[in-house]
Amino acid sequence: MSDFTNSNMPMPIINIGADLFADALDAQGIAVTRVAWRPPAGDEHALRTLLADPAVDAANKIAVERMLAAHPVLVDVQPARDVIPALRERRLLHAGPPINWERMCGPMRGAVIGACIYEGWAKDETEAVALATSGALDFEPCHHFNAVGPMAGITSPSMPLFVVEDKTHGKQTFSTLNEGLGKVLRYGAFAPEVLQRLRWMQEVLGPALGRAIRNLGGVDVRAIMAQALQMGDECHNRNKAATSLFVRQVGQALVETGYSRAETASVLRFIASNDHFHLNPSMAAAKAITLAGANVPRSSVVVTMARNGVDFGIRVSGLGDRWFVGPAQYIQGLYFAGYGPEDANPDIGDSAITETSGVGAFAMAGAPAIVQFIGGTPADALRYTREMYDITVTSNPLFGIPALDFQGVPFGIDIRQVCRLNMPPVINTGIAHRLPGVGQVGAGIVHPPMDCFEQALKALAT
Amino acid sequence: MSDFTNSNMPMPIINIGADLFADALDAQGIAVTRVAWRPPAGDEHALRTLLADPAVDAANKIAVERMLAAHPVLVDVQPARDVIPALRERRLLHAGPPINWERMCGPMRGAVIGACIYEGWAKDETEAVALATSGALDFEPCHHFNAVGPMAGITSPSMPLFVVEDKTHGKQTFSTLNEGLGKVLRYGAFAPEVLQRLRWMQEVLGPALGRAIRNLGGVDVRAIMAQALQMGDECHNRNKAATSLFVRQVGQALVETGYSRAETASVLRFIASNDHFHLNPSMAAAKAITLAGANVPRSSVVVTMARNGVDFGIRVSGLGDRWFVGPAQYIQGLYFAGYGPEDANPDIGDSAITETSGVGAFAMAGAPAIVQFIGGTPADALRYTREMYDITVTSNPLFGIPALDFQGVPFGIDIRQVCRLNMPPVINTGIAHRLPGVGQVGAGIVHPPMDCFEQALKALAT
Repeated sequence: MSDFTNSNMPMPIINIGADLFADALDAQGIAVTRVAWRPPAGDEHALRTLLADPAVDAANKIAVERMLAAHPVLVDVQPARDVIPALRERRLLHAGPPINWERMCGPMRGAVIGACIYEGWAKDETEAVALATSGALDFEPCHHFNAVGPMAGITSPSMPLFVVEDKTHGKQTFSTLNEGLGKVLRYGAFAPEVLQRLRWMQEVLGPALGRAIRNLGGVDVRAIMAQALQMGDECHNRNKAATSLFVRQVGQALVETGYSRAETASVLRFIASNDHFHLNPSMAAAKAITLAGANVPRSSVVVTMARNGVDFGIRVSGLGDRWFVGPAQYIQGLYFAGYGPEDANPDIGDSAITETSGVGAFAMAGAPAIVQFIGGTPADALRYTREMYDITVTSNPLFGIPALDFQGVPFGIDIRQVCRLNMPPVINTGIAHRLPGVGQVGAGIVHPPMDCFEQALKALAT
Repeated sequence: MSDFTNSNMPMPIINIGADLFADALDAQGIAVTRVAWRPPAGDEHALRTLLADPAVDAANKIAVERMLAAHPVLVDVQPARDVIPALRERRLLHAGPPINWERMCGPMRGAVIGACIYEGWAKDETEAVALATSGALDFEPCHHFNAVGPMAGITSPSMPLFVVEDKTHGKQTFSTLNEGLGKVLRYGAFAPEVLQRLRWMQEVLGPALGRAIRNLGGVDVRAIMAQALQMGDECHNRNKAATSLFVRQVGQALVETGYSRAETASVLRFIASNDHFHLNPSMAAAKAITLAGANVPRSSVVVTMARNGVDFGIRVSGLGDRWFVGPAQYIQGLYFAGYGPEDANPDIGDSAITETSGVGAFAMAGAPAIVQFIGGTPADALRYTREMYDITVTSNPLFGIPALDFQGVPFGIDIRQVCRLNMPPVINTGIAHRLPGVGQVGAGIVHPPMDCFEQALKALAT
């Protein structure tokens, strides 16, 4: 070490935290090593208490072990009203934490209007808005019924849902079927073509897929995700491998369902033409995984992250069904040609359940090609995953990343570490246009507001 | 730099070439930087002449530009005799450079026996061997007819072949259809189940696929390979993404061919159950790419690398149809349970056309998961690709590797650089059992014998 004190050698400088000092040294041409550091977030006493509490560590161990043991298998496709009996007339499910019509953003309002027309509760936009404004419509988060929906997440009684069963714990979770890109209900579009597609999904796609999946004895979604993570998907904004593996697996069963040649071909064509078709089964599987870790007393593991386009909400294992909410953020990323930040809606959708379960942005190290879609470089993709190990309880060996020597994805977000490091989870996501029906205008990176974690920390400490 | 001469600092030591000195320093605890270096291979005068010859550089530029422009599209599946008229009665095509029955290895002999029974030229093994020994059978390399076949590569008149057309240059190339793993003709098996499968491929799989591909107006194999390279395939020993993308693309067209429900389902099931189904279209496409670069006078670019299980042969653009041959090597890799090096046949098959066209082991940086199959670590996979840039003329921007910041795969092997650096191309490949019909017993890494390149170097210089 004496070399470093030799007068011919420059003094090594390490800058911890605020970049102001390092920037000044840089400007003078002096080498400086930067160490990221931020002061802890939230109530200091609560944080110290929870970090020192062995009961929290023990509870987290139970929560993540249950999550690791979950084995989500796609077992059926059924009409929503048949698998979620609470989804009665005049009730709609939506993405994110609870919200009423008055506070809903444009895309979610558009999807509500579309669902009312689709269900025959209204004959047009005017009637649908009148119905929604009247208070006669009941709105509930998808998550309250173990369902998840991307973007607006509007789920109505007649829609076919993927039924995923956790073969270890026996619980079922649900998600809508992906409509494809462009003008679609989940971005708030309700043009006749959108409703016509929803009806075809209800009459042909859903029943045919359901029969094929039942004939196959189920499709192992966990296995598809594990393979897809070795094939460049992260199972949130890249679903190309998972979708291809899914088509490959259900293809022959679809042929054998007894549907006509034209119907079978239309179903195969519809699935094959949408790189994101498997996002929804992955989301239902992610919900099954996180659900397995819910309601462990004292556990500080996050089991829900969801956005309604206005609020971002989280739920924590040891805190039951309570939502901790902050403002939904704007997404930093790439816009499609012709669009810019002024077009963007804040963060929306239940799809952050993927990150909550260790995939999505948490698994970006395995999906370097995604940077062409959300911006940045493959090195950034590696970094996002690496950083998440600091705020998670463990890693998931079933979801190994080849580029990280097959290390499992970071797994089980711990609100204590989020606050200690002042480092919120990273989420990659699509950017919805703020007006109903325009659709996706870009994709990028977003974080939950730290406020959610700070509130939950305090609640868990008291 | 004065710091380095400071007496407190250790003298930096760089070891070039032979590791003997570096090992000795290591043993004494002295830091040493190792630089790989080997003396050039082959005739020194020939090497100096060719390296200094601008005509060779100009010819190589033409060769690789033609190869880069090639656009292989799968346009049909047809019986071999219809697309290769020279494939008349009593003629078989085989992998690698020319070889006669007497010198053939076990797996190739087994495949010849199977093909004779399949074609009805012999009723059993005894008759087939008698026929082959009699000299009445004509053997020709697949490559002599712009065809390629994995492992034994035995191609007989009745077999259905993939027909790939280079849309830029108009030439057609061919490959057999992949039979799957286990007991298969290409590993020399000729049991009744093998021949029965071949007949089903002739009667159902080939015609149904041909019709689906024609109805689609062709399948862009180059596009599938480009996508697969971003999905963890390297298109030689990992074909999972390409196979899945292929099923996804042809699925609905297969349903619409008019074949019965049972036949369509059997075709989809057969393709879907074999992760390597797309190896063969990729090989025909690789042949189309390399064929486009053939026969450019003075070019030192390799356009064929192929093995018959006894000899390894290469052909060079500026040297026309001449083969330069050396002994096929044994493969270093992982064996399946119950097998070991004593079971291995030397390197066999036309599949090294993938490396010749810049994929396979040349693209391993994009397929880190393959190390679970062939041995090594993901870092090795990166290294194999990086090393190949040193012996290639350029890179192929159409085949970008996300893990290398989307850099194209190393492209256009230059025999001058192979000899200058004494660094043969790397190939990853399956290990065939040396006895006919046992099948694959492992997979690993192999190199062509340097002798091929040294002979070609001398021929090009004279």
